[in-house]
Amino acid sequence: MNAAVPDPLAGYRIETEPFYRPAGNEVALYRQAYRHRMPLILKGPTGCGKTRFVEHMAWSLGRPLVTLACNEDMTASDLVGRYLLDANGTAWHDGPLTLAVRHGGICYLDEVVEARQDTTVVIHPLTDARRILPLDKKGELVRAHPDFQLVVSYNPGYQSSAKDMKPSTRQRFAALEFDYPDSGLEAEIVAHEAAVGFDLAAKLVAIARCSRELKHRGLDEGVSTRMLIYAGVLIRDGVSPRDSCEMTMTRALTDDPDMASALQGFVAAQFG
Amino acid sequence: MNAAVPDPLAGYRIETEPFYRPAGNEVALYRQAYRHRMPLILKGPTGCGKTRFVEHMAWSLGRPLVTLACNEDMTASDLVGRYLLDANGTAWHDGPLTLAVRHGGICYLDEVVEARQDTTVVIHPLTDARRILPLDKKGELVRAHPDFQLVVSYNPGYQSSAKDMKPSTRQRFAALEFDYPDSGLEAEIVAHEAAVGFDLAAKLVAIARCSRELKHRGLDEGVSTRMLIYAGVLIRDGVSPRDSCEMTMTRALTDDPDMASALQGFVAAQFG
Amino acid sequence: MNAAVPDPLAGYRIETEPFYRPAGNEVALYRQAYRHRMPLILKGPTGCGKTRFVEHMAWSLGRPLVTLACNEDMTASDLVGRYLLDANGTAWHDGPLTLAVRHGGICYLDEVVEARQDTTVVIHPLTDARRILPLDKKGELVRAHPDFQLVVSYNPGYQSSAKDMKPSTRQRFAALEFDYPDSGLEAEIVAHEAAVGFDLAAKLVAIARCSRELKHRGLDEGVSTRMLIYAGVLIRDGVSPRDSCEMTMTRALTDDPDMASALQGFVAAQFG
Amino acid sequence: MNAAVPDPLAGYRIETEPFYRPAGNEVALYRQAYRHRMPLILKGPTGCGKTRFVEHMAWSLGRPLVTLACNEDMTASDLVGRYLLDANGTAWHDGPLTLAVRHGGICYLDEVVEARQDTTVVIHPLTDARRILPLDKKGELVRAHPDFQLVVSYNPGYQSSAKDMKPSTRQRFAALEFDYPDSGLEAEIVAHEAAVGFDLAAKLVAIARCSRELKHRGLDEGVSTRMLIYAGVLIRDGVSPRDSCEMTMTRALTDDPDMASALQGFVAAQFG
Amino acid sequence: MNAAVPDPLAGYRIETEPFYRPAGNEVALYRQAYRHRMPLILKGPTGCGKTRFVEHMAWSLGRPLVTLACNEDMTASDLVGRYLLDANGTAWHDGPLTLAVRHGGICYLDEVVEARQDTTVVIHPLTDARRILPLDKKGELVRAHPDFQLVVSYNPGYQSSAKDMKPSTRQRFAALEFDYPDSGLEAEIVAHEAAVGFDLAAKLVAIARCSRELKHRGLDEGVSTRMLIYAGVLIRDGVSPRDSCEMTMTRALTDDPDMASALQGFVAAQFG
Amino acid sequence: MNAAVPDPLAGYRIETEPFYRPAGNEVALYRQAYRHRMPLILKGPTGCGKTRFVEHMAWSLGRPLVTLACNEDMTASDLVGRYLLDANGTAWHDGPLTLAVRHGGICYLDEVVEARQDTTVVIHPLTDARRILPLDKKGELVRAHPDFQLVVSYNPGYQSSAKDMKPSTRQRFAALEFDYPDSGLEAEIVAHEAAVGFDLAAKLVAIARCSRELKHRGLDEGVSTRMLIYAGVLIRDGVSPRDSCEMTMTRALTDDPDMASALQGFVAAQFG
Repeated sequence: MNAAVPDPLAGYRIETEPFYRPAGNEVALYRQAYRHRMPLILKGPTGCGKTRFVEHMAWSLGRPLVTLACNEDMTASDLVGRYLLDANGTAWHDGPLTLAVRHGGICYLDEVVEARQDTTVVIHPLTDARRILPLDKKGELVRAHPDFQLVVSYNPGYQSSAKDMKPSTRQRFAALEFDYPDSGLEAEIVAHEAAVGFDLAAKLVAIARCSRELKHRGLDEGVSTRMLIYAGVLIRDGVSPRDSCEMTMTRALTDDPDMASALQGFVAAQFG
Repeated sequence: MNAAVPDPLAGYRIETEPFYRPAGNEVALYRQAYRHRMPLILKGPTGCGKTRFVEHMAWSLGRPLVTLACNEDMTASDLVGRYLLDANGTAWHDGPLTLAVRHGGICYLDEVVEARQDTTVVIHPLTDARRILPLDKKGELVRAHPDFQLVVSYNPGYQSSAKDMKPSTRQRFAALEFDYPDSGLEAEIVAHEAAVGFDLAAKLVAIARCSRELKHRGLDEGVSTRMLIYAGVLIRDGVSPRDSCEMTMTRALTDDPDMASALQGFVAAQFG
Repeated sequence: MNAAVPDPLAGYRIETEPFYRPAGNEVALYRQAYRHRMPLILKGPTGCGKTRFVEHMAWSLGRPLVTLACNEDMTASDLVGRYLLDANGTAWHDGPLTLAVRHGGICYLDEVVEARQDTTVVIHPLTDARRILPLDKKGELVRAHPDFQLVVSYNPGYQSSAKDMKPSTRQRFAALEFDYPDSGLEAEIVAHEAAVGFDLAAKLVAIARCSRELKHRGLDEGVSTRMLIYAGVLIRDGVSPRDSCEMTMTRALTDDPDMASALQGFVAAQFG
Repeated sequence: MNAAVPDPLAGYRIETEPFYRPAGNEVALYRQAYRHRMPLILKGPTGCGKTRFVEHMAWSLGRPLVTLACNEDMTASDLVGRYLLDANGTAWHDGPLTLAVRHGGICYLDEVVEARQDTTVVIHPLTDARRILPLDKKGELVRAHPDFQLVVSYNPGYQSSAKDMKPSTRQRFAALEFDYPDSGLEAEIVAHEAAVGFDLAAKLVAIARCSRELKHRGLDEGVSTRMLIYAGVLIRDGVSPRDSCEMTMTRALTDDPDMASALQGFVAAQFG
Repeated sequence: MNAAVPDPLAGYRIETEPFYRPAGNEVALYRQAYRHRMPLILKGPTGCGKTRFVEHMAWSLGRPLVTLACNEDMTASDLVGRYLLDANGTAWHDGPLTLAVRHGGICYLDEVVEARQDTTVVIHPLTDARRILPLDKKGELVRAHPDFQLVVSYNPGYQSSAKDMKPSTRQRFAALEFDYPDSGLEAEIVAHEAAVGFDLAAKLVAIARCSRELKHRGLDEGVSTRMLIYAGVLIRDGVSPRDSCEMTMTRALTDDPDMASALQGFVAAQFG
Repeated sequence: MNAAVPDPLAGYRIETEPFYRPAGNEVALYRQAYRHRMPLILKGPTGCGKTRFVEHMAWSLGRPLVTLACNEDMTASDLVGRYLLDANGTAWHDGPLTLAVRHGGICYLDEVVEARQDTTVVIHPLTDARRILPLDKKGELVRAHPDFQLVVSYNPGYQSSAKDMKPSTRQRFAALEFDYPDSGLEAEIVAHEAAVGFDLAAKLVAIARCSRELKHRGLDEGVSTRMLIYAGVLIRDGVSPRDSCEMTMTRALTDDPDMASALQGFVAAQFG
């Protein structure tokens, strides 16, 4: 990049190391995949650390990370860009995906199964030998920067089959599967992130473990690591454990009285 | 903020203390959550005081409050902003959410489950460690002002499961649960707001209590505190209690003859 | 208002007294509600006089009346306004609701249950203590003129439950219920409006009474007062009563042969 | 109208008398309704002469006729008008309905039940005592020209109940019912319009009569008068009656082999 | 037309005689219909020669032919035209239908039942005595050129009843029914078009005949004349008959293994 | 093409020979079809080499290849082009299809059954004797360049019947059917593309063969050749065969635990 030209991805660079504790060999496998710029699927439950993992990898590889939360109202133009009127007439504005493709970022499409088809097929020519992004409205074929990689994620647990990835899309990706970290590791993470002692963190993790057994038995998802950190932060600040867990877990997770009372039981088992 | 620049949130500041009687420790818990700028869900039935509570907290914390009533026709652009043509060409106009994010307000999304997906996923990067709002159309990443907080509300009682929050959204929030205040407190509120005596207020509250037993047995919702204040105001002005209650409760709440006659019975029990 | 500025609601002022015969104490109740600018629902069957009533009240209170017939294709912009291109570039044009809010009119949303959600939630901040209308696209918070009031109407008889008002909307209103006037009063109205004798009017009203018994038994609605006036006008002009009633009632009301012959029976009973 | 201003409805004036044979007193009744500018519904089967009737009345009353074929894709803007860009910037263009309202034409909405709701409620304030048309986007209230009348039509035979007129719309109209003319009159019309002898015309009418018995028994509609005229024209030009009827009736009306052979039988009964 | 003005329909003129072998008296009947500019429906299975027929008639009558393939995404503006921005501001551009109406072409709407309602009702005023096309957005009533004729086609075999023509549209047309030509004629056509011998053509036709028996018994359509010509061309170039038929018939027509093997059987019966 | 004018299809030319191993006589058949510019369907499962085949043919014929991944949100304008505002006002921009038609490329519509109807009927006049592309919005009839050919593909295995090609579209094409190459050939391809030994490639192919037996018995598709190449690349880089296959096959292909364990069994059978 010419030194005189400002870096269009500057805002997407990750300055400080994101805290991430590996659960297995996922860091090494990601590095291998990135060596070949292999498109990657990250699968796993909500809040288990997929986003944090890709942030950590982007930081570790020194690459900017362009993250997009997919949704059914997102259009292909939201990804690739559009003509916009400005003071000097219309001008093309690269979308987030195009910025990453052109300037060599990692583009991360979070919850890709929520997106519409035109969003997902737009990535097809980026994920085979061609590595191109056609900007049909601009009449330009963008060849991907050598550093560009595409990463997508989804939660295989709760999306309906109607929202599955098309086989022709899936086959363009390698995949890594994630799950919540094991108890010791998760307690370590909670202790670190919430700045609380390991024992308190372990109690919180024990509540989460129980809640995850209720998945598909009344809960869409169990308590996530992020929720445990919220709870830890409030307890550290002097809020009672019961109030903290009620606020960050029970009430946040469910509207169902039976589920709420089951969760309250898990809390009581740890904190009396 | 530079003194020469007018405050873009001036119109959203709450000048006079909104009347609010706490029902428990919700004020302290909100203050703890705000200390960490923790995203917050307020759950509870229609008209029980959620909006008044967040107004009171915003006043008490000295923060502007940007309120948005969510609905299924609301787009992400309605929240984040858009380019508009003016005399000097097109210019970007921050939406209400962006105003709050950029200048440090509390943004309150009322009845968030009514919104479409693109409205709800737009808040994801604001509700994790990143605290950023990507304005994709403008090519800008807005880092949240240190004072910014996101609060959402919904009524767990009557929205269909099709309109539930996505698990991946829920897990980004802590939650406080609200209900109608207890009889004595509610009567005190009605007496204060409608400027009527406590005894009259207590009779009105008794009617409301009965009506709330009919919830899910023919009524979507029982009589709210707000309705009681309306009734009190009319009675104070000399309208007969029967006409006042008919107008502000019975006819406003239901079109069903059986329900209407049940409500009329509750009124007659208090006012003869 | 500055004398040099033309009144933006001039076209909405009602110059001559609209003919209205009260059926009960609805005029007094409306006046009380208006004193507090209480939002009001008018409920009742089609053609029973709700629109005429609100016109009469607006005339009597000396307030301009901005009427909007709601429908499912109406957008929030149709109510609040939009930017439009003109010779000098784009300029904001207040919608009918904004005109009424800003300059102190009564805004009447006829058949409000036909409107989409974004139309109905736009009125929420106008119908609680805030009395504000946020023009998000213009970045303006309009504080309601002290004279502004919101009135809505619907017909509880034939809209499906899918088109009911949301509980959170209903609870912001007091309500008045209307029905067709009693026989004597209705005949008086028909005689006055169609300029026919009371006896003829009474015969027409008798037909209408019978037809209203068929509601929900083959007819969506019975013969309205308005139809009776049409019939009276034609009879006054020399059209035979049978032809007049056939044209203004039977054929206008139904396509069903059985219903048509029932209605013809009612006409024959009065006019032979 | 100022002589220097060209008549904006000039193109909608009917120069030569449209051929119309009354079947009853519909001409007199229409004239009475027009005296009071009463909104009118014309009901009856496809091709029975409703459009021709309103053309004849407009010619006879010396009024321009603005006809619109309604459909579910028609918007309110298609009726009332819109801002359009031209060389001098944007300018308002009256839609067909507005032209008729402003300059005193008869506006005829053909098959009104096919239109969407926003198209039909736009006519409400034109069809009661107000006789106004609000152009919300232009901020103008057009008061109807004294000569303006609204006429709508539909075919009660084949639209689904989902496409019925709303009761609140129906009650704003008087109605005239049409059917195919009786045999002698219809033969006279066919003979006149196709320039064939009465005997040939009578044979064609006999075929049509039989076909109309099949309505709702396999045919959506029977053979219309217009089809008979087509057949007559071809026979006059030397095409065989069998080929003429096959082409203008049988093949045009149905794709069903059984229905086609029934129709062929009716033709054979007349022409061997 | 003024010699100095270029012919706007020049591109739509058919220079060389399209090959067409009449199957009956359809050429004479079309000529009679055209004499009266009678609107015409061409009915028949896919690929039986309807398009070729109308091309031949347009050539034979010396009229330009404007063809439009209808589909459910086509709007009325696609037919009649729209305002477009160009260097000198906005200018009206006639759509294909308007071009034909204004300058005297034959407009052919292929597969008209695939179009949306606004596309089909736009042709109503063109297909009765008025012969006008209202350009509502332009405020112009185009009177049809004396040479203009409207022709539409559809395949009665496979469209669902939901996609039938409205009775009020059908009754504006005369209709001609087409089917595949008889064996001898079809072989002659294939021999001519593919430049192969009559014997080979007859074998190909024999395969097609068998395949058409499978219509509605596993195939949506049988082998069309066009497919036979493709096969003949490949065989003439030296591709084996089996490969040619596999490629142009079997694989093109069906994905069903049973149907494919039936078709292969028909091929084997002719070519061993 | 004039030497001074840059080639608008330059970006679509294929510089280096794409690796392709023929499985039968498909290369010769394609060449025959191209001689007549016959429109072509390529049918076959995902990842079996259809795209690679058409790239190879385009390279071998020296023609640029314009590829479009079809999807249900793609509009006709995305194919044919649109007017866009630029600094000098609006200008027409040819879409990818128009570029190919005008300048003589091969246009390849990948997964054509995913496209909407207006996308597919737009190709009708390009696929019969006319070989024209009407640009209705521009008022231009583009005659196809003599070198232009249209090729489409789809996977007959998993699209629903609702997404089948219309018979009237199918009959305009000849078709070639593809399947995965036989074991020896596929191993040769994997060995070449992943730069691994034939023995390792053969083991990978054996896994794929087993997985394809599960198609329609729990898997939408089996392991594709592309996935085998991914696996080979990782193994070559030192990732264990088990991890490589887990990442590029098992986790990428399925979320179902039973299917995953079946696939793991196939891997274990080869690599222990």
